Amino acid sequence: MILHDYLPSGNGYKIRLLLNLLAQPFQLKHYDIVAGESHTPEFLALNANGKIPVLQLDDGRCLAESNAVLFYLAQGSQYWPTDPWQQAQVLKWMSFEQYSHEPNIASVRFWLGHAGLNETRRAQLADKKRQGYAALDVMEKHLSQHRYLVGERLSIADIALYAYTHVAEEGAFSLASYPAIQAWCKGIFQLDNYVSIDDESALLA
Amino acid sequence: MILHDYLPSGNGYKIRLLLNLLAQPFQLKHYDIVAGESHTPEFLALNANGKIPVLQLDDGRCLAESNAVLFYLAQGSQYWPTDPWQQAQVLKWMSFEQYSHEPNIASVRFWLGHAGLNETRRAQLADKKRQGYAALDVMEKHLSQHRYLVGERLSIADIALYAYTHVAEEGAFSLASYPAIQAWCKGIFQLDNYVSIDDESALLA
Repeated sequence: MILHDYLPSGNGYKIRLLLNLLAQPFQLKHYDIVAGESHTPEFLALNANGKIPVLQLDDGRCLAESNAVLFYLAQGSQYWPTDPWQQAQVLKWMSFEQYSHEPNIASVRFWLGHAGLNETRRAQLADKKRQGYAALDVMEKHLSQHRYLVGERLSIADIALYAYTHVAEEGAFSLASYPAIQAWCKGIFQLDNYVSIDDESALLA
Repeated sequence: MILHDYLPSGNGYKIRLLLNLLAQPFQLKHYDIVAGESHTPEFLALNANGKIPVLQLDDGRCLAESNAVLFYLAQGSQYWPTDPWQQAQVLKWMSFEQYSHEPNIASVRFWLGHAGLNETRRAQLADKKRQGYAALDVMEKHLSQHRYLVGERLSIADIALYAYTHVAEEGAFSLASYPAIQAWCKGIFQLDNYVSIDDESALLA
């Protein structure tokens, strides 16, 4: 399979991390999204929404949206629970990630580290910081009482939220006052087959 | 079961519509989110993230995030496909809804119709309009070739995206140039057991 991706993307990294944990080989095709490479006619044929990551199966079928890709790849593995209530909790945390966490923490990181600030973005910075810290507060509260987000074992909910949380400081979010999040990040970092977000060499396993 | 909700919310309405289609009785508990009623200690005990809707089961367990609730309620019904690839496509469209559609189309509707504009929101309006129309373009392209979003039958992907699409004009998004979206909306409107977003009387089925 081919992962159409942008290396600094946490959304892409979620999938790279899961593929490595599953020891599933894949090819990486890189797009410079800041230069508009996810809006060419060729890319829009893969995902009409013009966003990486996109997983392309060997038969050519494509799946967009990082958390949908995690769901698909995790079927039958230890990272997708079998109980419907726990499955719903995994989806709850992944929705939380895409709505309350990523648009704040990942956006600020992307603006400061990659795309730059403009007037519209500058006007949103204070709101994004406030909402990003609110999302970290929700995670800290849960992780101070539970080792993982769902069912006391690692799932794709943890992988989804780890992606942008562990690089939150690149968006000027300090994790200093979040000891439970730090311990949870450390546990994931220590997994067998762990791969870092910028480790291109490990991607072509 | 109890649905903790705010009647104008499309996120809540997704669940009300599915519960009606499933002929599943429920109680509605209403919160004025503009007045801060989803940030009281009592509400935060239901959802630490301080957002409606929340589904509370008869045994007290709570599930937040509208699309996770749709997933849970649709298990075993015709609205959740049995094929894993189609399931992943449903989640793809629901992620698209929460990331590319709702934050633009629903936010502008909420600002103009309920919460009001402030300086930060005013600075984002043009971007939100552009991105909201881009999301409608993606839907129109798909629906001009397919009757439903996934697998040629109604699923929770359609229910999730119908919620804010059918009231997009309340956010000053015109659907006039989206004939496929209009036809798709009409098909959902004509379903047996359809309930409208503001129909409180139908909620206590």
